[in-house]
Amino acid sequence: MAMTGVLRPGHAVVRVLDLEESVRFYTEVMGLKETGRDASGRVYFKTHAEHDHSSFVIRKASTAGMDCFGFKVLDAATLDRLEGRLREHGVATERRPAGDMLDTGERVRFQIPTGHIIELYADKTRIGNGLGFVNPEVWFPDFKGINPVRMDHSLLYGTDLDGSRRLFEEVFGFSLTERALLEDGQTDLAVFLTCSTKAHDIAFVRHAEPDKLHHVSFLLQSWEQVLRAADILSMNRVSIDIGPTRHGITHGATIYFFDPSGNRLETFAGGYDYYPDMHPITWTWDEVGAAIFYHDRKLNERFLTVVT
Amino acid sequence: MAMTGVLRPGHAVVRVLDLEESVRFYTEVMGLKETGRDASGRVYFKTHAEHDHSSFVIRKASTAGMDCFGFKVLDAATLDRLEGRLREHGVATERRPAGDMLDTGERVRFQIPTGHIIELYADKTRIGNGLGFVNPEVWFPDFKGINPVRMDHSLLYGTDLDGSRRLFEEVFGFSLTERALLEDGQTDLAVFLTCSTKAHDIAFVRHAEPDKLHHVSFLLQSWEQVLRAADILSMNRVSIDIGPTRHGITHGATIYFFDPSGNRLETFAGGYDYYPDMHPITWTWDEVGAAIFYHDRKLNERFLTVVT
Amino acid sequence: MAMTGVLRPGHAVVRVLDLEESVRFYTEVMGLKETGRDASGRVYFKTHAEHDHSSFVIRKASTAGMDCFGFKVLDAATLDRLEGRLREHGVATERRPAGDMLDTGERVRFQIPTGHIIELYADKTRIGNGLGFVNPEVWFPDFKGINPVRMDHSLLYGTDLDGSRRLFEEVFGFSLTERALLEDGQTDLAVFLTCSTKAHDIAFVRHAEPDKLHHVSFLLQSWEQVLRAADILSMNRVSIDIGPTRHGITHGATIYFFDPSGNRLETFAGGYDYYPDMHPITWTWDEVGAAIFYHDRKLNERFLTVVT
Amino acid sequence: MAMTGVLRPGHAVVRVLDLEESVRFYTEVMGLKETGRDASGRVYFKTHAEHDHSSFVIRKASTAGMDCFGFKVLDAATLDRLEGRLREHGVATERRPAGDMLDTGERVRFQIPTGHIIELYADKTRIGNGLGFVNPEVWFPDFKGINPVRMDHSLLYGTDLDGSRRLFEEVFGFSLTERALLEDGQTDLAVFLTCSTKAHDIAFVRHAEPDKLHHVSFLLQSWEQVLRAADILSMNRVSIDIGPTRHGITHGATIYFFDPSGNRLETFAGGYDYYPDMHPITWTWDEVGAAIFYHDRKLNERFLTVVT
Repeated sequence: MAMTGVLRPGHAVVRVLDLEESVRFYTEVMGLKETGRDASGRVYFKTHAEHDHSSFVIRKASTAGMDCFGFKVLDAATLDRLEGRLREHGVATERRPAGDMLDTGERVRFQIPTGHIIELYADKTRIGNGLGFVNPEVWFPDFKGINPVRMDHSLLYGTDLDGSRRLFEEVFGFSLTERALLEDGQTDLAVFLTCSTKAHDIAFVRHAEPDKLHHVSFLLQSWEQVLRAADILSMNRVSIDIGPTRHGITHGATIYFFDPSGNRLETFAGGYDYYPDMHPITWTWDEVGAAIFYHDRKLNERFLTVVT
Repeated sequence: MAMTGVLRPGHAVVRVLDLEESVRFYTEVMGLKETGRDASGRVYFKTHAEHDHSSFVIRKASTAGMDCFGFKVLDAATLDRLEGRLREHGVATERRPAGDMLDTGERVRFQIPTGHIIELYADKTRIGNGLGFVNPEVWFPDFKGINPVRMDHSLLYGTDLDGSRRLFEEVFGFSLTERALLEDGQTDLAVFLTCSTKAHDIAFVRHAEPDKLHHVSFLLQSWEQVLRAADILSMNRVSIDIGPTRHGITHGATIYFFDPSGNRLETFAGGYDYYPDMHPITWTWDEVGAAIFYHDRKLNERFLTVVT
Repeated sequence: MAMTGVLRPGHAVVRVLDLEESVRFYTEVMGLKETGRDASGRVYFKTHAEHDHSSFVIRKASTAGMDCFGFKVLDAATLDRLEGRLREHGVATERRPAGDMLDTGERVRFQIPTGHIIELYADKTRIGNGLGFVNPEVWFPDFKGINPVRMDHSLLYGTDLDGSRRLFEEVFGFSLTERALLEDGQTDLAVFLTCSTKAHDIAFVRHAEPDKLHHVSFLLQSWEQVLRAADILSMNRVSIDIGPTRHGITHGATIYFFDPSGNRLETFAGGYDYYPDMHPITWTWDEVGAAIFYHDRKLNERFLTVVT
Repeated sequence: MAMTGVLRPGHAVVRVLDLEESVRFYTEVMGLKETGRDASGRVYFKTHAEHDHSSFVIRKASTAGMDCFGFKVLDAATLDRLEGRLREHGVATERRPAGDMLDTGERVRFQIPTGHIIELYADKTRIGNGLGFVNPEVWFPDFKGINPVRMDHSLLYGTDLDGSRRLFEEVFGFSLTERALLEDGQTDLAVFLTCSTKAHDIAFVRHAEPDKLHHVSFLLQSWEQVLRAADILSMNRVSIDIGPTRHGITHGATIYFFDPSGNRLETFAGGYDYYPDMHPITWTWDEVGAAIFYHDRKLNERFLTVVT
């Protein structure tokens, strides 16, 4: 049946060191559209193709990293239901009022075992993609920079990986699509979870510290767009972590790079579709290189250590 | 939450005029893998990337066309539940036993208002995609022909379009993603419905006759694969209906062509992802050309008339 | 050795019915850069990637079509030498002074047997591609519309096909890469000629009338850029003749469309490289459809009849 | 005019450590076609799309590296003429008889200042690309592995860079397309030279030792083919040096990897066309990273040190 429950990643709220420099980066290089600024100084962005008011929010802070990652749910009744299930699962939840984030309805906010703050919401103002709903053209021609399709997912690093995985599976009905194991052959190093047919809507890597961001990811339409993104990053002297390359996990063709504050971002294309009748894929420690970087078949030093 | 209910199109059973010629076409040109033949002479195929035993079945008959279109559902409990809902909706259902189709579990079979026979099932033998579930490579290198990713959807022509639409919406929880209107500005000429984030899992066009097939569609990985498919079709002197081109509806980049029996097939790539918070898109009669063939912005004569 | 003699197509001078409408089309839709207007009202354009001042020139007239097609030659000495060879071949030549066309040196102007006016020149002001010659970025990010790489070639229709072919072969040392034959199996319907490793720098089709333009062609970087061009044409309601599709001759992946005056243009990508040790390719009458439109394997009615 | 003089790189003769392992690599992974073995044990290969008998030859030796790099010239008269010019330039030449290399005519063999052995020849047996010259299909469908279009160029490391550059410019009429400078801002670190419209037909890097091979390069049709090549290399556990990425010099999109003997190979797509009226591009020492690896904008350690 059509999607219910948790629909998709809805917003990432990210800390930046210099607000205007970051606004320039996110509009000129990433090609996001600024859609508002609130009283507390947060700046809101959406991609051209997204309909909702915002999917990426930045605020100035003294340290980089991610404040929270939000998911959109089907409707207010779902929000209530999922809040109830969180509580049954022993998770303390907090409600934020509508308007607390610009053009966003009530949010249910909670901390997950890896230490991250996650939010759920049902409503955001529908700004539209500029194309309308009657006889629309196929893409919006007036854009800048990389111009991704949508904010797609995040990869979060934290301590109690198993706890976060169980929460997403048991409370929200996410499915495990892939996992990578540690050297002991049993403990998860990384888990990839979906609430849709995407190969992942969120993913976690076990890490000594809680509440760390590996990357926020944006979807591109094709491998050629990944090359275009890499060229644009180079022209703008953006620090590239790795890529263009392909992930063994999810098959996505990707490039990892850093925003001016050192937050890692990803722009990727492709990846297979996941259905619940698929058997999860497992990567053993000896092949974790290929799992993450399929061509090099080895991790770079930054993958396990550079987070914000 | 992860997918529930009806998951995806599962199999198309298509009538062909010459069995061995069609087997050659579907294996050599389409690059499907033959996975079995049953006692009644049906030949079963899957794509390399699919895990289930079969998604495309042909049988020799005196007329071309489609016998039935099947959807996979989450599990046996879902099958029972949906059979119950069909009956509540006034639809007579019939159960076919496991094994009646090779390597397929019990099927619930029913006729929809447009005259088509639709089936639901929960189980097919999992043959796999040849890559395994531990440290898998990203694609299977030993293939022929067009080698699509999966059987993706069908476009069916029939009489009571509104009845079929309502059935999929009300019984199965499909969402309407797009519609094209007739000249009166109110009556649907075409409706596109999804049970996932695909822009459509099934679609219908209003037609004077019931139970007609416009096309069975297979997914490709990229626009370059669409060119490759067109080249392969040309090399094999396959009759091309139209393309490469793009659809305004769904944005898919496509090529329509005919199998040796005159059944229309599609191989396409791309298309946007649909979520239930998206407003359906409407195409008015004056723009139905662009809806179907976005570049030419007009229908070709065959679109509304050539069906099997 | 490096290229000598005639280097490449240098400029097409085309007649348009409405100047400002055409300027808008060539800048907004085609993405050419206007580089000047001369006293006689001609408007000059270049692509972003081209270095020379102009490669495409339009002037208002009462009929569409092409005034002349110019080739750049290596240097002034080559210009003199080739003018001499033309005269030996019995061709009357005329010199136009430097500046007669904006930012263009002296031109040798002559009529070829198919009735077309061809020009040769050695100098155009080097405006550059905006990237410089020291540590350049790889492409110029500030563009509009289709944004082709260069004006690439033209396909000209005329009467004495053999005469024009012989002139290019004998006077300028062009090589025949491909030909298509008429029904008699001997007479050329079409010939494709190169002065480089391009599959063609100019081509001719036999036609009842002299001095007709089939199309002026612009190169794109990839098949994905051909799709992008088709989308942009659709958004701008430009009349598409055919495509996206592929040519059997040259292998180029293409789309043919019409400017507001009815002049046919092409944007294409790919095609093989030709070397003089390659045997020319011949297409027989029964396969001329595949020669021109490889996927449909048949000509559309417009190919042989719609010219300006 | 059409190409004269030196036409293109014709063959690379490369030393391998294990002959059958290398034959398997070059046929199964690279997708070259073995076309012969001679009495001295050399194995000859061509790509499917090439017409000549061979473009890549291997022989078993105790050290990896390249024996010689051969160029095809227009005809026997050109061979004689260029041999004469070599002698005028003070270069000792040697003639090898027809048949000394399989299906290859007489060769003029000489050493260039960087220490490399270069050959010129006019004739190789034309085996064809399997498609014929009458109504040919556009590509040969029966292939394996990476299946490149042609052997395209080599990058050679050696001592007297200026001497080799001058030889190619003065004797053969090659043009310098790009250069990268050493820290002193004057001395060439690298030079790129063309005898056609390719951004380079051969290139040199200054190196402490003479007669070293950086890579032999094969052309692919598109950036998507570069991803496909990278996937195939990974599946076959081939050691990848770097890529997919893009070169600032030539704009080629590339992947560098090592054959089983440690010889570096490249498969690349794209790159601009060079004409003699283009100003050479210069890269300064501070930007040599971007010149070679445009995305990372820095050299990897292997670029200047790992050669065979």
